[in-house]
Amino acid sequence: MLKDFVKAELPDEEELKSKLKEERARLSASQMKIKEAGLPVMVLFEGWNAAGKGALIGKVIRNIDPRFFKVATMDREPSPEEKRYPFLYRYIKEIPEAGKFRFFDTCWMEEVVDGVLDKKLTEDIYQKRVHSINVIERQLCDNGYLVIKFFFHISKKEQKKRLKNLQSSKDTSWRVDKDDLLQNKHYDRCLEVFEKYLSDTNQSRAPWYIIDATDKKWAELQVLQFLNQGIDIALKNQKMNVPILQNTFPLEKIVKLSEIPLDDKTVSAAEYDAELERLQKELKDLGNKVYRKKIPVIIAYEGWDAAGKGGNIKRITEALDPRDYVVEPIASPEPHEKARHYLWRFWTRLPKTGHITIFDRTWYGRVMVERLEGFCSENDWQRAYNEINEFEKELTDWGAVIIKFWVQIDKDTQLQRFNDRQNTPEKQWKITDEDWRNREKWDQYEGAIDEMIAKTSTTFAPWYVLESVDKKYARIKALKIVIEQIKKALE
Amino acid sequence: MLKDFVKAELPDEEELKSKLKEERARLSASQMKIKEAGLPVMVLFEGWNAAGKGALIGKVIRNIDPRFFKVATMDREPSPEEKRYPFLYRYIKEIPEAGKFRFFDTCWMEEVVDGVLDKKLTEDIYQKRVHSINVIERQLCDNGYLVIKFFFHISKKEQKKRLKNLQSSKDTSWRVDKDDLLQNKHYDRCLEVFEKYLSDTNQSRAPWYIIDATDKKWAELQVLQFLNQGIDIALKNQKMNVPILQNTFPLEKIVKLSEIPLDDKTVSAAEYDAELERLQKELKDLGNKVYRKKIPVIIAYEGWDAAGKGGNIKRITEALDPRDYVVEPIASPEPHEKARHYLWRFWTRLPKTGHITIFDRTWYGRVMVERLEGFCSENDWQRAYNEINEFEKELTDWGAVIIKFWVQIDKDTQLQRFNDRQNTPEKQWKITDEDWRNREKWDQYEGAIDEMIAKTSTTFAPWYVLESVDKKYARIKALKIVIEQIKKALE
Repeated sequence: MLKDFVKAELPDEEELKSKLKEERARLSASQMKIKEAGLPVMVLFEGWNAAGKGALIGKVIRNIDPRFFKVATMDREPSPEEKRYPFLYRYIKEIPEAGKFRFFDTCWMEEVVDGVLDKKLTEDIYQKRVHSINVIERQLCDNGYLVIKFFFHISKKEQKKRLKNLQSSKDTSWRVDKDDLLQNKHYDRCLEVFEKYLSDTNQSRAPWYIIDATDKKWAELQVLQFLNQGIDIALKNQKMNVPILQNTFPLEKIVKLSEIPLDDKTVSAAEYDAELERLQKELKDLGNKVYRKKIPVIIAYEGWDAAGKGGNIKRITEALDPRDYVVEPIASPEPHEKARHYLWRFWTRLPKTGHITIFDRTWYGRVMVERLEGFCSENDWQRAYNEINEFEKELTDWGAVIIKFWVQIDKDTQLQRFNDRQNTPEKQWKITDEDWRNREKWDQYEGAIDEMIAKTSTTFAPWYVLESVDKKYARIKALKIVIEQIKKALE
Repeated sequence: MLKDFVKAELPDEEELKSKLKEERARLSASQMKIKEAGLPVMVLFEGWNAAGKGALIGKVIRNIDPRFFKVATMDREPSPEEKRYPFLYRYIKEIPEAGKFRFFDTCWMEEVVDGVLDKKLTEDIYQKRVHSINVIERQLCDNGYLVIKFFFHISKKEQKKRLKNLQSSKDTSWRVDKDDLLQNKHYDRCLEVFEKYLSDTNQSRAPWYIIDATDKKWAELQVLQFLNQGIDIALKNQKMNVPILQNTFPLEKIVKLSEIPLDDKTVSAAEYDAELERLQKELKDLGNKVYRKKIPVIIAYEGWDAAGKGGNIKRITEALDPRDYVVEPIASPEPHEKARHYLWRFWTRLPKTGHITIFDRTWYGRVMVERLEGFCSENDWQRAYNEINEFEKELTDWGAVIIKFWVQIDKDTQLQRFNDRQNTPEKQWKITDEDWRNREKWDQYEGAIDEMIAKTSTTFAPWYVLESVDKKYARIKALKIVIEQIKKALE
């Protein structure tokens, strides 16, 4: 892309001026359209050092009200804290919300190409990174984001000239560092690595725009034109259904909820006490090992109302060091969460390495409550199975242990527990009208859950059903599975 | 993808049998659904030699009525005739029509990986091929095709065993050739090249399925499951609007039709005669050179009714050797053309190298008559600008000269010519009710044409306007442009 890059023709001074004026006004006018349409706009600036990315971002934002944009300046190297999260984490944290612009002064490209140039990334890891980036960019587009990617291109000679100019003045010489000079020295090698990355990540929905950055005004015009064009197209594409993708993830065979025997899944009080003590002791040990070996652990709980999730979670956490785990209760999304990709609030709640996060309800809300209550479109939840599988694949590739529990009871048991809650003053806070309303939709939920388990029981993140008519049985089973999976990861 | 390929677990004999039965019936049942929905299904079988692709195609088609499928068996090497067309040509010729299956016993992958292994393809050409394949697969999906890609995977040891078995019997030894043995000998090198290709072409809408082909029944089950799953999803996705892509092609600045002066574009009779003779002589010469240098030339005519396309074309063809050119008059598509990707009837009418094809009306019908008469959906024609630019880029990359003419007259001139046709008995066949109806929509057409010219005047295939109030002027201008463009290509 860079080697055979055909420079567009630089317009003459007069034309450049009038076009710049026109495109600036166009961008200015589109901010309200974006706001009204709730379009999130993510603009990635990448390119050669000293190509003028930062200065150009400064020019672009002059046309936008400060309430409608933010600039994310990403450090070349992730901080030690950020390194304890998946590679994409520090970028995903920064994605814009609906109706707003977010400009990235370098994004995931820089970290990856730097890794290749510094020989910190093997070819295998490079391929994985590229895959992760392609997946997340596609997911963002599918979820209504406009993703615009600019690569600022200057020649070796031009870069050298600019670096010299910067060095020649005291006011600017601090801006030139060793990396800049090294990049110019090894320009051809960098070109090759950039070229490969650009072609590896040049997706149809999120294509690269190569910006000829030799002339600054001309660069500004190109950026504005592409940005404005992208906005027009994105507004047209809004609310459009997106094709469901074929599933390519290996799936486990799973039985239907109605076929799971519940009655014989009990444990005696004596056995429970003994087992609980033994298992919690074992888990405590493993928790320490997980911490020392820096393994991230994600435990996800879903289940019927009153199935016993809370008590089950408690038996896990009792065994753990409070500094090492966090329980994340998931309710309906807040406005700032709703305004972003629906997985964003889970991405930002991930454990860091060596830590355990227990989700009390999860991202599967998308294909259960959000599906059945119409909080998202049919296309949204149908797409979500694959998006969730991709999300969990990303996490297991990172090295996380993912354990997904479905806490299962039958309809009669739920009624009994609801009545018990209703009739016991100190438990009344646990039962709401909504619980009763959800109960009326039991059969619909059961269908949705069967579909969910069938489509998301991947070999790398399968579902485990906890039979919880006898809550004690479910707790013992959960502990055993957590222990087993952590042990496997420690091997 | 192949190196870290995790084999799914082989089911036990009993389960395998019952599942096979189920999936065969499912495929059998879906053929009528596919027919009714008008879904074209393209299934690509690629993989190691002796992995059992052919045999498995034989098993799959047993479940389908012969009226609903065809098998395209592609030779490893294109024929000398096929080599005179773009790389994709011989495959695109074979794409299925709506409602039918087409199974490819190897497709574009084999030719490309063979090229890399034989060192016939440089890295640059390989990248171009991969790009072309990704574009056409995406276009097919966007245009309602289901594209399913299988890679049949066996180990080096398994392949060796199979080749030995085949060689050991007189009935089958002919099936093992030098290439098979070479592939086994250089298995690791092949693996690397395959791996790269698979990852380079693993698109979200057309992903690869790696089939563990060690056990034949198990391979059949996997193929049927993925195929059936793909069909279900494709039926759900049918008639869905597809996002419009951002334009990344460099565009030329073009004025609006209404801003093009027409009156002063005339030529005297004497000048015309002299120029015509001179230019036709020059073009004749160039036609021979084009033939000898094996350059393909595509001349595309669009323009208002009665603008003078026919006479203009005649002045070009008069200068050419009848063996070297063909004029393709384009009317509304026939049923077998309508049943395929709308560019298919143009792909299959391309000139071979050294030849000239003149299209009297073109693929731009999509964004003019089909758009305005509602013969395609809004989403279809909005997507078409980019698809057409991609098509023309493919052709120029192949080495073709593309010249696109818009033959322009004003509304009054058209009326005059219509009346003249109506009132002259020997010209009456040239005027139909449809012409009058189209004329009523002049303004709508003008808007569509302005948009078309603005969005498809790429730097590699720009539009040329022929001012044709004075037909003679337009003819001279056309000849000059054709000469100029061919000369440029001969340089």
